[in-house]
Amino acid sequence: MANLGYFNNDIKEYKITEMRPRRPLKNFLWNEQFILILDHFGFGESFRYITPEERRFVVNDGDAGRVIYIKDRESGEFYDANRNYLNKPFEKYECNVGIGYQQIVSEYKGVEVKFTLTVPTEGFAELWKIEVKNNTDKLKKIDLVPYCRPAVNVTSHLAYGRADYNTDLDGLYFLHDAYNIIHNYVSVFMKATLTPDSYDISDINFKGVYNSPSDPVALYNDELSNKGSAFDPNYCGAMQFKLDLAANEEKTVYIALGMATDLEDAKKSCDIYLKPGFFEESIAKVKSDADKMDGLYLLNSPDEYINTMVNIWLKRQISLGKTWGRVYNKGFRDIMQDTAGLSAFDGKFAREKIMVCLATQRPNGNPMRSFAPIDRDPYYDGAVWTPEAVLAYLNETGDLTVLDEDVPYFECDEHGTVFEHMYRGLRFLLDNRGEHNMVLWGGGDWNDSINNAGNQLKGESAWLSIATVKAVKEFCRICEIMGGKDDLIAKLLEERAVLKEAILKHAFEGDQFIYGINDWGEKVGSHESYQGKTYLNAQTWAVLAEMLDEEGLNKIMQTVEDKLKCDFGYVQCAPAYSESDLHIGRMAYFIPGGYENGSVYNHGVAFKIAADCLLGKADTAYESLMMMRYDNPKNANSGVEPYVITNMYFGPQEKYRPGFSFYAWFTGAAVWVYRDITEFILGVKGEYTGLQINPCLPSCWDNVFVSRVYRNARYNITYKRTGSYKLMVDGKEIDGNIAPIFPEGTEHTVVCEF
Amino acid sequence: MANLGYFNNDIKEYKITEMRPRRPLKNFLWNEQFILILDHFGFGESFRYITPEERRFVVNDGDAGRVIYIKDRESGEFYDANRNYLNKPFEKYECNVGIGYQQIVSEYKGVEVKFTLTVPTEGFAELWKIEVKNNTDKLKKIDLVPYCRPAVNVTSHLAYGRADYNTDLDGLYFLHDAYNIIHNYVSVFMKATLTPDSYDISDINFKGVYNSPSDPVALYNDELSNKGSAFDPNYCGAMQFKLDLAANEEKTVYIALGMATDLEDAKKSCDIYLKPGFFEESIAKVKSDADKMDGLYLLNSPDEYINTMVNIWLKRQISLGKTWGRVYNKGFRDIMQDTAGLSAFDGKFAREKIMVCLATQRPNGNPMRSFAPIDRDPYYDGAVWTPEAVLAYLNETGDLTVLDEDVPYFECDEHGTVFEHMYRGLRFLLDNRGEHNMVLWGGGDWNDSINNAGNQLKGESAWLSIATVKAVKEFCRICEIMGGKDDLIAKLLEERAVLKEAILKHAFEGDQFIYGINDWGEKVGSHESYQGKTYLNAQTWAVLAEMLDEEGLNKIMQTVEDKLKCDFGYVQCAPAYSESDLHIGRMAYFIPGGYENGSVYNHGVAFKIAADCLLGKADTAYESLMMMRYDNPKNANSGVEPYVITNMYFGPQEKYRPGFSFYAWFTGAAVWVYRDITEFILGVKGEYTGLQINPCLPSCWDNVFVSRVYRNARYNITYKRTGSYKLMVDGKEIDGNIAPIFPEGTEHTVVCEF
Repeated sequence: MANLGYFNNDIKEYKITEMRPRRPLKNFLWNEQFILILDHFGFGESFRYITPEERRFVVNDGDAGRVIYIKDRESGEFYDANRNYLNKPFEKYECNVGIGYQQIVSEYKGVEVKFTLTVPTEGFAELWKIEVKNNTDKLKKIDLVPYCRPAVNVTSHLAYGRADYNTDLDGLYFLHDAYNIIHNYVSVFMKATLTPDSYDISDINFKGVYNSPSDPVALYNDELSNKGSAFDPNYCGAMQFKLDLAANEEKTVYIALGMATDLEDAKKSCDIYLKPGFFEESIAKVKSDADKMDGLYLLNSPDEYINTMVNIWLKRQISLGKTWGRVYNKGFRDIMQDTAGLSAFDGKFAREKIMVCLATQRPNGNPMRSFAPIDRDPYYDGAVWTPEAVLAYLNETGDLTVLDEDVPYFECDEHGTVFEHMYRGLRFLLDNRGEHNMVLWGGGDWNDSINNAGNQLKGESAWLSIATVKAVKEFCRICEIMGGKDDLIAKLLEERAVLKEAILKHAFEGDQFIYGINDWGEKVGSHESYQGKTYLNAQTWAVLAEMLDEEGLNKIMQTVEDKLKCDFGYVQCAPAYSESDLHIGRMAYFIPGGYENGSVYNHGVAFKIAADCLLGKADTAYESLMMMRYDNPKNANSGVEPYVITNMYFGPQEKYRPGFSFYAWFTGAAVWVYRDITEFILGVKGEYTGLQINPCLPSCWDNVFVSRVYRNARYNITYKRTGSYKLMVDGKEIDGNIAPIFPEGTEHTVVCEF
Repeated sequence: MANLGYFNNDIKEYKITEMRPRRPLKNFLWNEQFILILDHFGFGESFRYITPEERRFVVNDGDAGRVIYIKDRESGEFYDANRNYLNKPFEKYECNVGIGYQQIVSEYKGVEVKFTLTVPTEGFAELWKIEVKNNTDKLKKIDLVPYCRPAVNVTSHLAYGRADYNTDLDGLYFLHDAYNIIHNYVSVFMKATLTPDSYDISDINFKGVYNSPSDPVALYNDELSNKGSAFDPNYCGAMQFKLDLAANEEKTVYIALGMATDLEDAKKSCDIYLKPGFFEESIAKVKSDADKMDGLYLLNSPDEYINTMVNIWLKRQISLGKTWGRVYNKGFRDIMQDTAGLSAFDGKFAREKIMVCLATQRPNGNPMRSFAPIDRDPYYDGAVWTPEAVLAYLNETGDLTVLDEDVPYFECDEHGTVFEHMYRGLRFLLDNRGEHNMVLWGGGDWNDSINNAGNQLKGESAWLSIATVKAVKEFCRICEIMGGKDDLIAKLLEERAVLKEAILKHAFEGDQFIYGINDWGEKVGSHESYQGKTYLNAQTWAVLAEMLDEEGLNKIMQTVEDKLKCDFGYVQCAPAYSESDLHIGRMAYFIPGGYENGSVYNHGVAFKIAADCLLGKADTAYESLMMMRYDNPKNANSGVEPYVITNMYFGPQEKYRPGFSFYAWFTGAAVWVYRDITEFILGVKGEYTGLQINPCLPSCWDNVFVSRVYRNARYNITYKRTGSYKLMVDGKEIDGNIAPIFPEGTEHTVVCEF
């Protein structure tokens, strides 16, 4: 394992100590409308979400957005404290990734700089705190020059742009008052708690025409140019603060960098952001909200990393998904799955999300693939995700009223209840069947990238058919909870049986399920295929949908172990497509080992871990989880941030960088891995009638403790390995595996022998 | 004047000797379908024009597309020969801007590198020639490492991309075989005439994750990584050639960098491009074509710069416009004006362009603003430009058949002759009139940026009305040439008189014409206006359209001198709009001094020079031309390339960079300035019946000689200042100012006394 740093759980930080890891390590800071995406240097873009199609950036240069230059006024030597372009021999470097902040600390020649970033809980700005400390016993005359690349040119027409130091604001003010602009956030401000000694507005003046960020021309002078700019392709915000630091003295400057509608708005915003204490209070509020969420499920297992992820970091990753979806994209399928996991943390939020998502379901029952921005591609799987999400919500909250909520259908006058939406969704799946009586593939399913197998509405997806079998069961469970729906249940179970039969007849090959049959009648993911012979999800979902008896399921999962396992997980399909195939679609043009085409797609691995648990294979499940970890010794330098789950590792068929993770954070895997650990391995899951405790703990785990809030009561659960199942609640043995619902605010002791 | 370099007319080069001018100096290399835009370092993008909406880039990184690294293998020291990132003390630097090539020459520690670029006359590639010479008397062990940033990711989906050294090609081969891509140029090749000793494909390997172009990690090793790459956001093409250069020895490597449909196509292309002599022959062909064009009009005046521009560089700039329009955009108005100038060089081409443009005229007579890409904004001025272009073509060629050519109207089944198109265009102008009986403004006219004054179809443009007066006259001249159209001429002249009367009544303020009256009934460009009181084009076009008697015209041109003149030309309007105004449009949101809002827009200055000449103000015209020049001592460091005309200089109201030119090359001013000098100052202009010689020479010019080809005969013209006009052709005095048409291939002596 590359030694990148370490967790400090006491303060919920990950401390990065390696300044130059394999790839920049990312962090996110956000509120409901504004987000800052940054790497361990503090570089990265920040923007406000305005409409699904419109973002307003404050910084849009991912490479060199924020630099904290330091110059020794006596020697003339300069460098930058956060990026170290010039590779100076720093005495210290660390990047503290915290909850709601990030702090880059460095020291060079006795000057310590702490650069902390946060996003206020409301508003459209990023806030900086810069502490400069003289750790020597002599006076240091230091220029502190914070620099940013604000996104001023919100239209492509440079002639709208002008910027200068604004004395009224006492800060830098960048205006792009464009004709016919579709939002009114036409200005950017950069203001500090100190009045700067000089400033720059244009990169031409600061960096020079031919110099680089490591070597800005302005730093060769005593002061910055103090020149405004207009019609500039490259604005910058740079402020010089001449600091005289006595021995061991520290000085602090705060900076607000944000967007505004006009000068008055900018002034008002800065008044708030730069009020003494605001910065620290803002972080404290984010941390306290996180603490509340974290407290809802606390784990103490023998595996410190798993504890850390469950208790802190997976929740952080899930929180990002909760507010921002995949940041650039809000998809029906993604949000519904997130919602299934989020019900345990925030029932009100999950309820809202269910309704928001269902409002993008077309009247024929098929939801939009993505609704922000709108993706009208004819994916057919949307409806399959709804029952699970709604059932999770009902189980977790007991709130049946959601089912009667009236929700419109997409882009039409029709509307109906949540229940009707769900049912109409199921009908879309059950009524759109192909020649083999399986569900039509359409433009694709979970596997977005098989997007040309079923467009002619002949191809059938075996995976989608299996997922429908599962969804029908979940929907029937909802009917059961509602009561009085026996006829509907009976009818659906019959339809389910027919569908199941069709799948077994046409999609089962004894040791595996195929993925589907395309428009041309060709089997996809079959032993007959010359590439893409085995697909992970078809097998794991067959387990989730109970498609076979236990022996049959064990057999197909053995195929998974035999064909899909590699050193860092399980590939989506194997062998990956190495020849492009128009009868598959996009996926078969991807490089072998990339995305769905044979990468270790962790969303799929998370399904696999759940399937393992359902079959009681605790150690296999745990081992699969270990392979995904950043500290997997067989994938020692994968690039992934230790504190998040990555979307994928390039598969073993990728020639150049197998095992590499090129980004993390945005992935449906986060919620699913959280559920793997909490619901499937630890087995603690809300049911409608109580809290189910059904563990599947790896053999190496003893002394496991979980504290879990369910229906606002707390269950403190200890596990004992005895070889036979027994559930004790507050000292009394319980029949079955479900601990009862308790009054809000109460706390209970649960002992689970297994 | 900043000392940037000098012209070398013997070989038609401009030699840039200043490595770090105020802004990078641009040059263009192109064939009919492929273009390379480069600065004096050789940086800049190259692409193929596929459809109006689609370009296929080979290099799309404007900042660091091509670098020639040199490493001394013995000392380990490395640098780059064309950009000098590290600011090494070069012994020599020059960039030779030639016709069809550009050559960057540098020398450091006795190693001279010549980096020459060209584009073949056919095909989709850029070609490099790199000559490395050891100017010392000792053996030098040199690594030559040419580097580029090819545009491999033609879709945003990185997973389609893969690249490696291809042994079959014996070069680097980058593939992006994407699903559903709209063209098939899915690969890029980079191949040299030598097999490299090592290579890199990925910037991660070459430059490193955290290093910069000045300091690539690969150059610290003996060899490049020899690793392929896939799914890479940053491909590169880097090849190491280990050259042992004896004292005074020189070695040459050629490189072809281009696009291909597949490997076979790449191999075939490289076979052609890298054939011995191909590079030099390719440049020779471009030069010989340019020589032919240059020879059609040769000037020998006392002003060396004007000679250079007329004889070489304006023609080069016009050639770019001829093939590529404004490179990113092909506009009706722009092409029609270019055509008016191009008829003298290439009648066949002008004929084609007229028909291509007219096919984008809507059936109501109003052409599209721009047709590649399509701009449907409802500009109203298109039709006003057609008669001048067609008349110029007729005058220059005598070919009346063009008028009968059948051309479709835009996006409909209608079609009609060129003549009908012209007339329908005039009717659009004459029939769409407002309350004051002037021509409706619509979405804008020449001044694109007054785009909200007339959208309600109430506002009237005085300028467009004046331009219509001029166009009617030109159209009538065409009718006259055709013959038998007396009734139509009479009718049109009557309509013209009525329109003229309306303009004089509602748009004339005694010492100036207003620009128009907007939808709200407010005068624009009037003494009544509180900003934008005087517009240049309304006055200069009043002269071109003969709106007043000479005294009246002189008076309004005096207003131009009084209100619009500055040190580097004449501003488009004054005072510029400093407050945004929705009743004007985009222009009133531009910064004061930017574009139409009060910059020195040289297209407008070119109209002004023509107007001066029409009023006989030779010295004023010449002085205006002097102000536009790169060597205007009052705008000594404007940034403009000495060898081209710039679109604009920021106006004096621009606070930070008045007089600055931020780009040149793309501008309607090129053809118009050429016409100013050749047709208006030198007064040599094709008429239908012969070659008109009607000079307006500045008082400081004596001993002027022009050699001009007209209808394929050559006229060698000398001018004599006598105070009275007399035209001698082949020794005989001619009545009037028109030298007769002569048989093709003949040569004639003309003496013009004036």
